[in-house]
Amino acid sequence: MLNTSEVANADNTDVRDLMATIGKKARAAARVLAIAPTSQKNKGLEAMAAAVRAATPDILKANAVDLETMKANGQLASFIDRGTLNEERIEAIACALEDIAKLDDPVGSTIAEWKRPNGLDISRVRTPLGVIGVIYESRPNVTADAGALCLKAGNAVVLRGGSDTINSNLAIYKALQAGLADAGLPVDAIQIVPVKDRAAVGEMLKGLDGNLDVIIPRGGKSLVARVQDEARVPVFAHLEGLVHIFIDKKADLDKAIDIVVNSKMRRTGICGAAETLLVDEAVAATILPPILAALQEKRCQIRGDEEVMMLCPTASEATEDDWSTEYLDAIISVKIVGGLEEAIEHIGTYGSNHTDCIITEDQIAARKFFAQVDSAIVLHNASTQFADGGEFGMGAEIGIATGRMHARGPVGVEQLTSFKYVVRGNGQTRP
Amino acid sequence: MLNTSEVANADNTDVRDLMATIGKKARAAARVLAIAPTSQKNKGLEAMAAAVRAATPDILKANAVDLETMKANGQLASFIDRGTLNEERIEAIACALEDIAKLDDPVGSTIAEWKRPNGLDISRVRTPLGVIGVIYESRPNVTADAGALCLKAGNAVVLRGGSDTINSNLAIYKALQAGLADAGLPVDAIQIVPVKDRAAVGEMLKGLDGNLDVIIPRGGKSLVARVQDEARVPVFAHLEGLVHIFIDKKADLDKAIDIVVNSKMRRTGICGAAETLLVDEAVAATILPPILAALQEKRCQIRGDEEVMMLCPTASEATEDDWSTEYLDAIISVKIVGGLEEAIEHIGTYGSNHTDCIITEDQIAARKFFAQVDSAIVLHNASTQFADGGEFGMGAEIGIATGRMHARGPVGVEQLTSFKYVVRGNGQTRP
Repeated sequence: MLNTSEVANADNTDVRDLMATIGKKARAAARVLAIAPTSQKNKGLEAMAAAVRAATPDILKANAVDLETMKANGQLASFIDRGTLNEERIEAIACALEDIAKLDDPVGSTIAEWKRPNGLDISRVRTPLGVIGVIYESRPNVTADAGALCLKAGNAVVLRGGSDTINSNLAIYKALQAGLADAGLPVDAIQIVPVKDRAAVGEMLKGLDGNLDVIIPRGGKSLVARVQDEARVPVFAHLEGLVHIFIDKKADLDKAIDIVVNSKMRRTGICGAAETLLVDEAVAATILPPILAALQEKRCQIRGDEEVMMLCPTASEATEDDWSTEYLDAIISVKIVGGLEEAIEHIGTYGSNHTDCIITEDQIAARKFFAQVDSAIVLHNASTQFADGGEFGMGAEIGIATGRMHARGPVGVEQLTSFKYVVRGNGQTRP
Repeated sequence: MLNTSEVANADNTDVRDLMATIGKKARAAARVLAIAPTSQKNKGLEAMAAAVRAATPDILKANAVDLETMKANGQLASFIDRGTLNEERIEAIACALEDIAKLDDPVGSTIAEWKRPNGLDISRVRTPLGVIGVIYESRPNVTADAGALCLKAGNAVVLRGGSDTINSNLAIYKALQAGLADAGLPVDAIQIVPVKDRAAVGEMLKGLDGNLDVIIPRGGKSLVARVQDEARVPVFAHLEGLVHIFIDKKADLDKAIDIVVNSKMRRTGICGAAETLLVDEAVAATILPPILAALQEKRCQIRGDEEVMMLCPTASEATEDDWSTEYLDAIISVKIVGGLEEAIEHIGTYGSNHTDCIITEDQIAARKFFAQVDSAIVLHNASTQFADGGEFGMGAEIGIATGRMHARGPVGVEQLTSFKYVVRGNGQTRP
């Protein structure tokens, strides 16, 4: 691998060549990984965890360099916090690697199986996807998490982390490579783009001459938007989580208060956090005041339509923009609607196909909501903050997808696979 | 809908507007279709079959116009045959519609279901994909088949048939529309591009302003190659079926003869027809002569490497090109290999990830072949001509895909769906 300083000032031709080489090596590694036994992959993951722990001093040293640069560049405190490592966070990275080792290996598992009248046995069996590209912003832990999840599913991965934490990423990456070597796995199974040059991202979006099968962006809206607009290969992503809760006329008040407050306020910065509350006009006068009071008690700002402002004089007025704004903050937009149909219509117009929830004791209303709201995750009487691979029992996720192709919802190790048909016969020919 | 003569000489701006309108209408229809009950969709399919039967004279009249144009343009006899309709073929179209009505409706079916320790019930439920574009060459039956399969899976479809059979397509399409109207389904659920202008295809490849979710090309290699190269939306397709059979050293001779002859000669023009035969050197001298004799008896031409020519003096010499040629004809290329590993290597180098077969009595060899050959369909001791949705028990297929994203192998009604996660709670909040 080229080292950072060698290529830090690489021109575009160099970057193109570098990326083409990375693509070729990834494809070759993917072929080997596709048939690597589970035990070998797990051995690699455990060795990676041990190597990360052993490299803690080096990783901290590299991180210190990144932190200094970020501070010198005047980055926001929250941005710097996401890029900061300490012993505890490095230990968490190592534990995450061990947790991924413990997940079931999806490769080779049978999804479906049936027998034909002519005696043919047909089964659909999981296979790796191939080579996955992950483009992420300054969170060094993604280097290990994404690398390990792809590896577990038998895929090679090309990582392109935010340039602000390039030294931390490279230090973690070095430990991952040591783990791969330890287990006799191809070291090119996990590669990291060693240059800051943004042209490297452009090459990934073009698909590395057919050597990249899917791209997963992890970061803010502008990164995801660029990837979705420009990628010539499939993308697993969500642009935003414009999450709605609809309180039906048959909602239970206590459940409604708990779920709304948790959905909005548990953590406001995650994609599963609620952004808009819709309430059936039939119960607004009784159910909305205690809910809004509970939100305000948690210091949540309310932006409401005219009727909401009448019920809650401390609310400010919602503009048209509010219905399509993902606040990721302690703000909620609230609208009173004529009923279930209008709520579904509102979600269809302003939603982002991510996660939406209905609160009701009426099973028929819940079924209608499930059928007609076209989102990756639809919930009934549960917090929208459950929109998470770990909470779904998938063990770990590389992100949440809102597209309808291949992966949808939390993208865990299973969603990083494809399948093939295996047909077993005994000499059958087709009439 | 515009009628053909109105837009036959449309300029590019008109085509762009026309296609944008088609896309918008398709998306609106898809929203209605997504929640249409199974009974209504089936009623539509049955009404479509009845309308096709009733329109037989009109369809034949329209087809006569197309046939005349094709003859005047000097098209090949095989091309004209594919575009020819008669009463029997129209009856087959009607029957196919009825068969699709009988298929299980995938929409709403549960793929997986589990319970979390906190009591949440999570299920993964099939949903329609959205809007599907089908671009096909002069086979009028595809108008009905593709339209009906997409409808059954709750998708809207935009059909773009070969201009040589545009009158036949429009006549069949008129019957489909009548069926949709009969069942109270949106008539825009199935739309056909009413212009010959190739710019219409370009607009589809660009995705109709986000209103097209996937494109399925059905036709020759140049059509598929153009779609794969230029499409900005996902494509379900195979470029070619470079199908291999490997005869392992533990193959049963009788099975080998039957399977090879059937795989190659039952129908030579389909994508599941075998193109290359690989034989383990350990058994070549004993097993190959009777197999090649059986093929020659069926008038199959043999192209072999040097060793094959020694065993079969009437064979001609295979060039490097032969290993990557899909003959779609009564020709087979034959190569003697050092063993299973070399066969897998050859398939990896020259194959098209479509369908490949091993003939052996050795289960370990079969398992290795299954694991290491990266094709949509891998077979053991069965004819490669089984590579077909109908033979797989899927009822009908819209094509076979060789990509690793979303659909792979035969694309039936189930593969034309996506899914969503449905989460049922009882007031759960996330700690």
